[in-house]
Amino acid sequence: MTQTTDPTARLRELGLTLPSPPAAVATYLPVVVVPLGGGRLQVSVSGQVALRDGVPLHRGRVPDQVSVEEAVENARACGLNLLAQLERSVGLASVERITQLSVFVRCADDFEQQPQVANGTSDLLADVLGEAGRHTRAAVGVNALPFGVPVEASLTAIARERERAAAH
Amino acid sequence: MTQTTDPTARLRELGLTLPSPPAAVATYLPVVVVPLGGGRLQVSVSGQVALRDGVPLHRGRVPDQVSVEEAVENARACGLNLLAQLERSVGLASVERITQLSVFVRCADDFEQQPQVANGTSDLLADVLGEAGRHTRAAVGVNALPFGVPVEASLTAIARERERAAAH
Amino acid sequence: MTQTTDPTARLRELGLTLPSPPAAVATYLPVVVVPLGGGRLQVSVSGQVALRDGVPLHRGRVPDQVSVEEAVENARACGLNLLAQLERSVGLASVERITQLSVFVRCADDFEQQPQVANGTSDLLADVLGEAGRHTRAAVGVNALPFGVPVEASLTAIARERERAAAH
Repeated sequence: MTQTTDPTARLRELGLTLPSPPAAVATYLPVVVVPLGGGRLQVSVSGQVALRDGVPLHRGRVPDQVSVEEAVENARACGLNLLAQLERSVGLASVERITQLSVFVRCADDFEQQPQVANGTSDLLADVLGEAGRHTRAAVGVNALPFGVPVEASLTAIARERERAAAH
Repeated sequence: MTQTTDPTARLRELGLTLPSPPAAVATYLPVVVVPLGGGRLQVSVSGQVALRDGVPLHRGRVPDQVSVEEAVENARACGLNLLAQLERSVGLASVERITQLSVFVRCADDFEQQPQVANGTSDLLADVLGEAGRHTRAAVGVNALPFGVPVEASLTAIARERERAAAH
Repeated sequence: MTQTTDPTARLRELGLTLPSPPAAVATYLPVVVVPLGGGRLQVSVSGQVALRDGVPLHRGRVPDQVSVEEAVENARACGLNLLAQLERSVGLASVERITQLSVFVRCADDFEQQPQVANGTSDLLADVLGEAGRHTRAAVGVNALPFGVPVEASLTAIARERERAAAH
Protein backbone atom coordinates (compact mmCIF):
# COMPACT_ATOMS: atom_id res chain seq x y z
CA MET A 1 0.00 0.00 0.00
CA THR A 2 1.70 3.22 -1.10
CA GLN A 3 0.12 6.09 0.75
CA THR A 4 0.74 8.93 3.10
CA THR A 5 1.44 7.56 6.57
CA ASP A 6 -0.10 10.54 8.31
CA PRO A 7 -3.80 9.72 8.76
CA THR A 8 -4.82 13.36 8.88
CA ALA A 9 -3.14 14.07 5.55
CA ARG A 10 -4.67 10.88 4.22
CA LEU A 11 -8.16 12.05 5.23
CA ARG A 12 -7.48 15.26 3.31
CA GLU A 13 -6.32 13.32 0.25
CA LEU A 14 -9.54 11.30 0.41
CA GLY A 15 -11.59 14.49 0.69
CA LEU A 16 -12.99 13.36 4.02
CA THR A 17 -13.81 15.40 7.10
CA LEU A 18 -14.31 13.66 10.41
CA PRO A 19 -17.70 14.33 12.00
CA SER A 20 -18.02 15.46 15.60
CA PRO A 21 -17.75 12.19 17.48
CA PRO A 22 -21.26 11.31 18.68
CA ALA A 23 -21.81 11.48 22.43
CA ALA A 24 -23.03 8.36 24.18
CA VAL A 25 -26.68 8.66 25.05
CA ALA A 26 -26.67 6.83 28.39
CA THR A 27 -24.38 5.73 31.21
CA TYR A 28 -22.05 4.08 28.75
CA LEU A 29 -19.12 5.89 27.14
CA PRO A 30 -18.19 6.35 23.48
CA VAL A 31 -14.58 5.28 24.14
CA VAL A 32 -12.68 3.62 26.96
CA VAL A 33 -8.87 3.82 27.03
CA VAL A 34 -6.90 1.60 29.41
CA PRO A 35 -3.08 1.64 29.81
CA LEU A 36 -1.57 -1.78 29.14
CA GLY A 37 1.94 -0.96 30.34
CA GLY A 38 4.96 -0.59 28.09
CA GLY A 39 3.54 2.58 26.60
CA ARG A 40 0.55 0.87 25.05
CA LEU A 41 -3.13 1.64 25.36
CA GLN A 42 -6.11 -0.63 24.83
CA VAL A 43 -8.90 1.32 23.15
CA SER A 44 -12.55 0.22 22.90
CA VAL A 45 -15.09 2.16 20.85
CA SER A 46 -18.85 1.75 21.35
CA GLY A 47 -21.17 0.65 18.56
CA GLN A 48 -21.48 3.51 16.06
CA VAL A 49 -24.49 4.14 13.84
CA ALA A 50 -24.96 6.66 11.05
CA LEU A 51 -27.05 9.62 12.22
CA ARG A 52 -27.06 13.09 10.66
CA ASP A 53 -28.25 15.76 13.07
CA GLY A 54 -29.76 12.99 15.17
CA VAL A 55 -31.70 11.51 12.27
CA PRO A 56 -30.74 8.12 10.74
CA LEU A 57 -28.96 8.46 7.40
CA HIS A 58 -30.94 5.40 6.27
CA ARG A 59 -33.63 3.35 7.99
CA GLY A 60 -34.69 -0.22 7.36
CA ARG A 61 -33.63 -3.67 6.33
CA VAL A 62 -31.11 -4.60 3.62
CA PRO A 63 -31.75 -5.21 0.73
CA ASP A 64 -35.48 -4.55 0.25
CA GLN A 65 -35.81 -1.32 2.30
CA VAL A 66 -32.20 -0.14 2.06
CA SER A 67 -30.15 -1.14 -0.99
CA VAL A 68 -26.76 -2.82 -0.71
CA GLU A 69 -25.16 0.35 -2.10
CA GLU A 70 -26.89 2.50 0.52
CA ALA A 71 -25.86 0.04 3.22
CA VAL A 72 -22.23 0.24 2.11
CA GLU A 73 -22.46 4.04 2.30
CA ASN A 74 -23.99 3.66 5.75
CA ALA A 75 -21.19 1.33 6.87
CA ARG A 76 -18.67 3.91 5.65
CA ALA A 77 -20.42 6.59 7.72
CA CYS A 78 -20.17 4.31 10.77
CA GLY A 79 -16.46 4.01 9.98
CA LEU A 80 -16.06 7.80 9.91
CA ASN A 81 -17.63 7.93 13.36
CA LEU A 82 -15.26 5.23 14.60
CA LEU A 83 -12.31 7.25 13.27
CA ALA A 84 -13.69 10.42 14.87
CA GLN A 85 -13.89 8.63 18.23
CA LEU A 86 -10.29 7.41 17.88
CA GLU A 87 -9.10 10.88 16.85
CA ARG A 88 -10.70 12.55 19.87
CA SER A 89 -9.58 9.94 22.41
CA VAL A 90 -6.02 8.92 21.46
CA GLY A 91 -5.35 10.64 18.13
CA LEU A 92 -5.36 8.78 14.82
CA ALA A 93 -1.56 8.99 14.51
CA SER A 94 -1.21 6.98 17.74
CA VAL A 95 -3.21 4.01 16.54
CA GLU A 96 -0.86 1.06 16.30
CA ARG A 97 -3.46 -1.41 15.14
CA ILE A 98 -7.21 -1.84 14.87
CA THR A 99 -7.55 -5.31 16.38
CA GLN A 100 -11.22 -6.27 15.98
CA LEU A 101 -14.14 -4.83 14.08
CA SER A 102 -17.71 -6.03 14.64
CA VAL A 103 -20.30 -5.12 12.01
CA PHE A 104 -23.99 -5.89 12.47
CA VAL A 105 -26.17 -5.58 9.37
CA ARG A 106 -29.95 -5.37 9.73
CA CYS A 107 -31.24 -7.51 6.91
CA ALA A 108 -33.79 -9.87 5.42
CA ASP A 109 -33.59 -13.51 6.51
CA ASP A 110 -32.15 -14.65 3.19
CA PHE A 111 -29.56 -11.86 2.81
CA GLU A 112 -26.00 -13.22 2.47
CA GLN A 113 -23.89 -10.18 1.55
CA GLN A 114 -23.00 -8.93 5.03
CA PRO A 115 -19.29 -9.00 4.06
CA GLN A 116 -19.90 -6.68 1.11
CA VAL A 117 -21.73 -4.23 3.37
CA ALA A 118 -19.08 -4.44 6.09
CA ASN A 119 -16.39 -3.61 3.53
CA GLY A 120 -17.78 -0.06 3.67
CA THR A 121 -16.29 0.20 7.15
CA SER A 122 -13.23 -2.01 6.59
CA ASP A 123 -12.08 -0.26 3.43
CA LEU A 124 -12.32 3.17 5.05
CA LEU A 125 -10.29 2.12 8.10
CA ALA A 126 -7.55 0.69 5.87
CA ASP A 127 -7.65 3.68 3.51
CA VAL A 128 -7.16 6.19 6.32
CA LEU A 129 -4.87 4.28 8.69
CA GLY A 130 -2.94 2.09 6.25
CA GLU A 131 -1.56 -1.14 7.70
CA ALA A 132 -2.58 0.01 11.21
CA GLY A 133 -6.17 0.04 10.01
CA ARG A 134 -6.24 -3.57 8.84
CA HIS A 135 -8.19 -5.65 11.34
CA THR A 136 -9.95 -8.90 12.11
CA ARG A 137 -13.68 -8.82 11.62
CA ALA A 138 -16.97 -10.49 12.36
CA ALA A 139 -19.84 -9.46 10.06
CA VAL A 140 -23.25 -10.88 10.90
CA GLY A 141 -26.87 -10.25 10.02
CA VAL A 142 -29.49 -9.23 12.59
CA ASN A 143 -33.21 -8.53 12.40
CA ALA A 144 -33.22 -5.19 14.25
CA LEU A 145 -30.90 -2.36 15.27
CA PRO A 146 -31.22 0.84 17.36
CA PHE A 147 -33.12 3.71 15.68
CA GLY A 148 -33.93 1.41 12.76
CA VAL A 149 -30.48 1.88 11.18
CA PRO A 150 -29.14 -0.76 8.79
CA VAL A 151 -25.57 -0.94 10.20
CA GLU A 152 -23.87 -0.79 13.60
CA ALA A 153 -20.08 -1.11 13.93
CA SER A 154 -17.78 -1.23 16.98
CA LEU A 155 -14.06 -1.85 17.37
CA THR A 156 -11.08 -2.43 19.62
CA ALA A 157 -7.59 -1.07 18.96
CA ILE A 158 -4.11 -0.78 20.40
CA ALA A 159 -2.53 2.67 20.52
CA ARG A 160 0.82 4.07 21.62
CA GLU A 161 0.84 6.16 24.75
CA ARG A 162 3.92 8.21 23.89
CA GLU A 163 2.55 9.58 20.67
CA ARG A 164 -0.69 10.28 22.41
CA ALA A 165 1.14 12.42 24.95
CA ALA A 166 3.09 14.14 22.17
CA ALA A 167 0.03 14.80 20.03
CA HIS A 168 -2.15 16.24 22.77
CA MET B 1 -20.96 10.89 40.79
CA THR B 2 -20.92 11.15 44.57
CA GLN B 3 -21.18 7.69 45.99
CA THR B 4 -19.51 5.14 48.16
CA THR B 5 -16.40 3.87 46.39
CA ASP B 6 -16.66 0.43 47.99
CA PRO B 7 -18.81 -1.65 45.61
CA THR B 8 -19.94 -4.02 48.37
CA ALA B 9 -21.19 -1.11 50.49
CA ARG B 10 -22.77 0.34 47.36
CA LEU B 11 -24.67 -2.90 46.70
CA ARG B 12 -25.98 -2.68 50.28
CA GLU B 13 -27.06 0.94 49.79
CA LEU B 14 -28.92 -0.11 46.66
CA GLY B 15 -30.60 -2.96 48.54
CA LEU B 16 -29.07 -5.50 46.16
CA THR B 17 -27.76 -8.97 46.88
CA LEU B 18 -25.54 -10.68 44.34
CA PRO B 19 -26.88 -14.04 43.14
CA SER B 20 -24.71 -17.15 43.14
CA PRO B 21 -22.75 -16.75 39.92
CA PRO B 22 -24.26 -19.22 37.42
CA ALA B 23 -22.04 -22.14 36.47
CA ALA B 24 -21.22 -22.60 32.80
CA VAL B 25 -23.19 -25.49 31.36
CA ALA B 26 -20.59 -26.85 28.93
CA THR B 27 -16.86 -26.88 28.20
CA TYR B 28 -16.75 -23.12 28.30
CA LEU B 29 -16.09 -21.15 31.49
CA PRO B 30 -18.08 -18.37 33.15
CA VAL B 31 -14.95 -16.22 33.56
CA VAL B 32 -11.41 -16.24 32.18
CA VAL B 33 -8.71 -14.16 33.91
CA VAL B 34 -5.36 -13.58 32.20
CA PRO B 35 -2.42 -11.64 33.72
CA LEU B 36 -1.37 -8.73 31.51
CA GLY B 37 1.83 -7.90 33.38
CA GLY B 38 2.31 -4.78 35.49
CA GLY B 39 -0.16 -6.09 38.06
CA ARG B 40 -3.11 -5.98 35.71
CA LEU B 41 -5.57 -8.69 34.77
CA GLN B 42 -7.74 -9.03 31.68
CA VAL B 43 -11.12 -10.44 32.65
CA SER B 44 -13.70 -11.88 30.24
CA VAL B 45 -17.18 -12.90 31.39
CA SER B 46 -19.41 -15.23 29.36
CA GLY B 47 -22.84 -14.20 28.11
CA GLN B 48 -25.20 -14.03 31.09
CA VAL B 49 -28.94 -14.58 30.93
CA ALA B 50 -31.58 -14.13 33.63
CA LEU B 51 -32.61 -17.47 35.07
CA ARG B 52 -34.18 -18.04 38.49
CA ASP B 53 -33.69 -21.57 39.79
CA GLY B 54 -32.88 -22.59 36.22
CA VAL B 55 -36.09 -21.11 34.80
CA PRO B 56 -36.02 -17.98 32.59
CA LEU B 57 -37.16 -14.85 34.43
CA HIS B 58 -38.93 -13.85 31.20
CA ARG B 59 -39.34 -15.63 27.88
CA GLY B 60 -40.05 -14.19 24.48
CA ARG B 61 -39.58 -11.30 22.13
CA VAL B 62 -39.58 -7.59 23.00
CA PRO B 63 -41.97 -5.73 22.91
CA ASP B 64 -44.99 -7.91 22.07
CA GLN B 65 -44.23 -10.95 24.26
CA VAL B 66 -42.01 -9.23 26.84
CA SER B 67 -42.61 -5.53 27.55
CA VAL B 68 -39.81 -2.97 27.40
CA GLU B 69 -40.10 -2.56 31.18
CA GLU B 70 -39.75 -6.31 31.72
CA ALA B 71 -36.80 -6.39 29.32
CA VAL B 72 -35.06 -3.61 31.27
CA GLU B 73 -35.61 -5.62 34.47
CA ASN B 74 -34.21 -8.65 32.68
CA ALA B 75 -31.16 -6.69 31.52
CA ARG B 76 -30.59 -5.59 35.11
CA ALA B 77 -30.73 -9.22 36.25
CA CYS B 78 -28.10 -10.07 33.60
CA GLY B 79 -26.02 -7.25 35.07
CA LEU B 80 -26.31 -8.70 38.58
CA ASN B 81 -25.00 -12.00 37.22
CA LEU B 82 -22.10 -10.20 35.53
CA LEU B 83 -21.24 -8.50 38.84
CA ALA B 84 -21.52 -11.84 40.67
CA GLN B 85 -19.06 -13.39 38.20
CA LEU B 86 -16.63 -10.50 38.70
CA GLU B 87 -16.97 -10.70 42.50
CA ARG B 88 -16.21 -14.41 42.58
CA SER B 89 -13.31 -14.27 40.13
CA VAL B 90 -11.33 -11.11 40.93
CA GLY B 91 -13.43 -9.26 43.50
CA LEU B 92 -15.51 -6.19 42.66
CA ALA B 93 -13.11 -3.86 44.50
CA SER B 94 -10.31 -4.89 42.10
CA VAL B 95 -12.14 -3.91 38.96
CA GLU B 96 -10.28 -1.02 37.39
CA ARG B 97 -12.58 -0.64 34.43
CA ILE B 98 -15.33 -2.45 32.56
CA THR B 99 -14.03 -2.06 29.02
CA GLN B 100 -16.74 -3.50 26.76
CA LEU B 101 -20.32 -4.60 27.28
CA SER B 102 -22.27 -6.50 24.60
CA VAL B 103 -26.04 -6.65 24.96
CA PHE B 104 -28.20 -8.77 22.65
CA VAL B 105 -31.94 -8.10 22.78
CA ARG B 106 -34.36 -10.66 21.34
CA CYS B 107 -36.95 -8.52 19.60
CA ALA B 108 -39.47 -7.95 16.84
CA ASP B 109 -38.06 -6.90 13.45
CA ASP B 110 -39.24 -3.30 13.86
CA PHE B 111 -38.07 -2.80 17.45
CA GLU B 112 -35.64 0.12 17.83
CA GLN B 113 -35.22 0.59 21.58
CA GLN B 114 -32.33 -1.81 22.20
CA PRO B 115 -30.40 1.05 23.92
CA GLN B 116 -33.22 1.60 26.41
CA VAL B 117 -33.24 -2.12 27.26
CA ALA B 118 -29.45 -2.31 27.51
CA ASN B 119 -29.47 0.60 29.96
CA GLY B 120 -30.83 -1.92 32.48
CA THR B 121 -27.38 -3.50 32.48
CA SER B 122 -25.33 -0.33 31.94
CA ASP B 123 -26.98 1.67 34.72
CA LEU B 124 -26.48 -1.13 37.23
CA LEU B 125 -22.77 -1.50 36.42
CA ALA B 126 -22.23 2.25 36.84
CA ASP B 127 -24.37 2.38 39.99
CA VAL B 128 -22.39 -0.35 41.71
CA LEU B 129 -18.86 0.27 40.41
CA GLY B 130 -18.94 4.04 39.87
CA GLU B 131 -16.50 5.33 37.24
CA ALA B 132 -14.91 1.86 36.99
CA GLY B 133 -18.26 0.54 35.83
CA ARG B 134 -18.64 2.95 32.91
CA HIS B 135 -17.98 1.08 29.68
CA THR B 136 -18.23 1.05 25.92
CA ARG B 137 -21.19 -0.84 24.57
CA ALA B 138 -22.74 -2.49 21.56
CA ALA B 139 -26.50 -3.08 21.84
CA VAL B 140 -28.11 -4.99 18.98
CA GLY B 141 -31.34 -6.81 18.25
CA VAL B 142 -31.51 -10.52 17.44
CA ASN B 143 -34.33 -12.89 16.56
CA ALA B 144 -33.50 -15.67 19.04
CA LEU B 145 -31.54 -16.30 22.24
CA PRO B 146 -30.74 -19.34 24.42
CA PHE B 147 -33.63 -20.65 26.55
CA GLY B 148 -35.95 -18.12 24.92
CA VAL B 149 -34.70 -15.27 27.13
CA PRO B 150 -35.08 -11.65 25.93
CA VAL B 151 -31.56 -10.44 26.91
CA GLU B 152 -28.00 -11.79 26.92
CA ALA B 153 -25.07 -9.66 28.13
CA SER B 154 -21.32 -10.30 28.23
CA LEU B 155 -18.35 -8.10 29.14
CA THR B 156 -14.61 -7.63 29.31
CA ALA B 157 -12.82 -5.77 32.11
CA ILE B 158 -9.42 -4.82 33.44
CA ALA B 159 -8.70 -5.57 37.11
CA ARG B 160 -5.77 -4.99 39.45
CA GLU B 161 -3.85 -8.05 40.55
CA ARG B 162 -2.58 -6.57 43.81
CA GLU B 163 -5.98 -5.86 45.22
CA ARG B 164 -7.10 -9.25 44.08
CA ALA B 165 -4.29 -10.83 46.05
CA ALA B 166 -5.15 -8.72 49.10
CA ALA B 167 -8.85 -9.44 48.88
CA HIS B 168 -8.59 -13.20 48.53
CA MET C 1 -8.35 -33.58 31.87
CA THR C 2 -5.78 -36.28 31.21
CA GLN C 3 -4.49 -35.81 27.71
CA THR C 4 -1.48 -35.13 25.61
CA THR C 5 -0.35 -31.55 26.19
CA ASP C 6 1.02 -31.18 22.68
CA PRO C 7 -1.88 -29.90 20.53
CA THR C 8 -0.42 -31.33 17.34
CA ALA C 9 -0.22 -34.81 18.87
CA ARG C 10 -3.69 -34.30 20.26
CA LEU C 11 -5.04 -33.49 16.78
CA ARG C 12 -3.49 -36.75 15.58
CA GLU C 13 -5.08 -38.70 18.44
CA LEU C 14 -8.43 -37.21 17.49
CA GLY C 15 -7.91 -38.15 13.87
CA LEU C 16 -8.17 -34.50 12.82
CA THR C 17 -6.29 -32.62 10.12
CA LEU C 18 -6.27 -28.84 10.14
CA PRO C 19 -7.60 -27.28 6.94
CA SER C 20 -5.67 -24.60 5.08
CA PRO C 21 -6.61 -21.47 7.02
CA PRO C 22 -9.08 -19.54 4.85
CA ALA C 23 -7.81 -16.26 3.44
CA ALA C 24 -9.75 -13.12 4.26
CA VAL C 25 -11.78 -11.99 1.28
CA ALA C 26 -11.45 -8.23 1.72
CA THR C 27 -9.32 -5.56 3.38
CA TYR C 28 -9.68 -7.27 6.70
CA LEU C 29 -7.24 -9.92 7.94
CA PRO C 30 -7.86 -13.47 9.15
CA VAL C 31 -5.67 -12.90 12.24
CA VAL C 32 -4.14 -9.90 14.01
CA VAL C 33 -1.33 -10.44 16.54
CA VAL C 34 -0.25 -7.61 18.83
CA PRO C 35 2.60 -7.79 21.39
CA LEU C 36 1.38 -7.03 24.91
CA GLY C 37 4.82 -6.81 26.53
CA GLY C 38 6.20 -9.37 28.95
CA GLY C 39 6.45 -11.91 26.15
CA ARG C 40 2.73 -12.12 25.61
CA LEU C 41 0.72 -11.69 22.44
CA GLN C 42 -2.90 -10.72 21.98
CA VAL C 43 -4.41 -12.70 19.11
CA SER C 44 -7.71 -11.94 17.36
CA VAL C 45 -9.20 -14.28 14.77
CA SER C 46 -11.87 -13.14 12.29
CA GLY C 47 -15.28 -14.79 12.08
CA GLN C 48 -14.86 -18.24 10.54
CA VAL C 49 -17.52 -20.06 8.55
CA ALA C 50 -17.53 -23.62 7.21
CA LEU C 51 -16.79 -23.67 3.50
CA ARG C 52 -15.41 -26.64 1.54
CA ASP C 53 -13.68 -25.60 -1.68
CA GLY C 54 -15.47 -22.26 -1.39
CA VAL C 55 -18.90 -23.86 -1.06
CA PRO C 56 -20.84 -23.76 2.26
CA LEU C 57 -20.79 -27.11 4.09
CA HIS C 58 -24.44 -26.42 5.02
CA ARG C 59 -26.79 -23.60 4.10
CA GLY C 60 -29.88 -22.39 5.88
CA ARG C 61 -31.58 -21.85 9.19
CA VAL C 62 -31.48 -24.14 12.23
CA PRO C 63 -33.47 -26.32 12.91
CA ASP C 64 -35.88 -26.54 9.95
CA GLN C 65 -33.39 -26.16 7.07
CA VAL C 66 -30.27 -27.39 8.86
CA SER C 67 -30.69 -29.91 11.69
CA VAL C 68 -29.17 -29.34 15.13
CA GLU C 69 -26.79 -32.24 14.47
CA GLU C 70 -25.66 -30.68 11.18
CA ALA C 71 -25.25 -27.31 12.90
CA VAL C 72 -23.06 -28.89 15.59
CA GLU C 73 -20.93 -30.43 12.84
CA ASN C 74 -20.79 -27.02 11.18
CA ALA C 75 -19.72 -25.35 14.43
CA ARG C 76 -16.97 -27.95 14.77
CA ALA C 77 -15.78 -27.12 11.24
CA CYS C 78 -15.67 -23.44 12.22
CA GLY C 79 -13.56 -24.49 15.21
CA LEU C 80 -11.12 -26.34 12.96
CA ASN C 81 -10.70 -23.16 10.92
CA LEU C 82 -10.11 -21.15 14.10
CA LEU C 83 -7.42 -23.65 15.15
CA ALA C 84 -5.88 -23.50 11.66
CA GLN C 85 -5.67 -19.71 11.91
CA LEU C 86 -4.01 -19.95 15.34
CA GLU C 87 -1.57 -22.60 14.10
CA ARG C 88 -0.48 -20.51 11.14
CA SER C 89 -0.17 -17.22 13.04
CA VAL C 90 1.34 -18.06 16.45
CA GLY C 91 1.42 -21.86 16.58
CA LEU C 92 -1.04 -23.92 18.62
CA ALA C 93 1.61 -24.81 21.22
CA SER C 94 2.04 -21.10 22.03
CA VAL C 95 -1.60 -20.51 22.90
CA GLU C 96 -1.77 -19.71 26.58
CA ARG C 97 -5.51 -19.23 26.69
CA ILE C 98 -8.50 -18.76 24.42
CA THR C 99 -10.13 -15.81 26.15
CA GLN C 100 -13.42 -15.21 24.32
CA LEU C 101 -15.41 -17.14 21.75
CA SER C 102 -18.38 -15.61 19.92
CA VAL C 103 -20.75 -17.99 18.13
CA PHE C 104 -23.58 -16.73 15.94
CA VAL C 105 -26.21 -19.30 14.96
CA ARG C 106 -28.58 -18.57 12.08
CA CYS C 107 -31.90 -19.90 13.29
CA ALA C 108 -35.68 -19.78 13.44
CA ASP C 109 -37.22 -17.19 15.75
CA ASP C 110 -38.24 -19.79 18.35
CA PHE C 111 -34.96 -21.74 18.38
CA GLU C 112 -33.39 -21.91 21.86
CA GLN C 113 -30.53 -24.38 21.55
CA GLN C 114 -27.74 -22.03 20.48
CA PRO C 115 -25.58 -23.34 23.37
CA GLN C 116 -25.88 -26.92 22.10
CA VAL C 117 -24.80 -25.82 18.61
CA ALA C 118 -21.94 -23.67 19.96
CA ASN C 119 -20.62 -26.68 21.90
CA GLY C 120 -19.48 -28.00 18.53
CA THR C 121 -16.85 -25.26 18.55
CA SER C 122 -16.23 -25.15 22.32
CA ASP C 123 -15.70 -28.89 22.72
CA LEU C 124 -13.21 -29.00 19.86
CA LEU C 125 -11.13 -26.12 21.26
CA ALA C 126 -10.96 -27.79 24.67
CA ASP C 127 -10.27 -31.23 23.16
CA VAL C 128 -7.31 -29.97 21.15
CA LEU C 129 -5.85 -27.33 23.46
CA GLY C 130 -6.79 -28.72 26.88
CA GLU C 131 -7.09 -26.15 29.66
CA ALA C 132 -5.68 -23.46 27.31
CA GLY C 133 -8.69 -24.05 25.06
CA ARG C 134 -11.31 -23.40 27.72
CA HIS C 135 -12.85 -20.00 27.14
CA THR C 136 -15.67 -17.61 27.89
CA ARG C 137 -18.44 -17.56 25.35
CA ALA C 138 -21.40 -15.68 23.97
CA ALA C 139 -23.76 -17.79 21.84
CA VAL C 140 -26.62 -15.94 20.19
CA GLY C 141 -29.16 -16.50 17.44
CA VAL C 142 -29.34 -14.36 14.30
CA ASN C 143 -31.61 -14.34 11.27
CA ALA C 144 -28.91 -14.24 8.57
CA LEU C 145 -25.21 -14.95 8.05
CA PRO C 146 -22.69 -14.54 5.19
CA PHE C 147 -23.05 -17.07 2.34
CA GLY C 148 -26.15 -18.50 4.00
CA VAL C 149 -24.12 -20.55 6.49
CA PRO C 150 -25.72 -21.63 9.79
CA VAL C 151 -22.74 -20.78 12.07
CA GLU C 152 -20.06 -18.09 12.34
CA ALA C 153 -17.45 -18.17 15.14
CA SER C 154 -14.67 -15.74 16.10
CA LEU C 155 -12.25 -15.63 19.04
CA THR C 156 -9.58 -13.79 20.96
CA ALA C 157 -6.63 -15.48 22.65
CA ILE C 158 -3.43 -14.82 24.55
CA ALA C 159 -0.25 -16.51 23.31
CA ARG C 160 3.36 -16.64 24.45
CA GLU C 161 5.88 -14.84 22.30
CA ARG C 162 8.86 -16.97 23.29
CA GLU C 163 7.37 -20.23 22.11
CA ARG C 164 6.26 -18.53 18.97
CA ALA C 165 9.83 -17.51 18.25
CA ALA C 166 11.02 -21.05 19.05
CA ALA C 167 8.38 -22.69 16.90
CA HIS C 168 8.90 -20.56 13.82
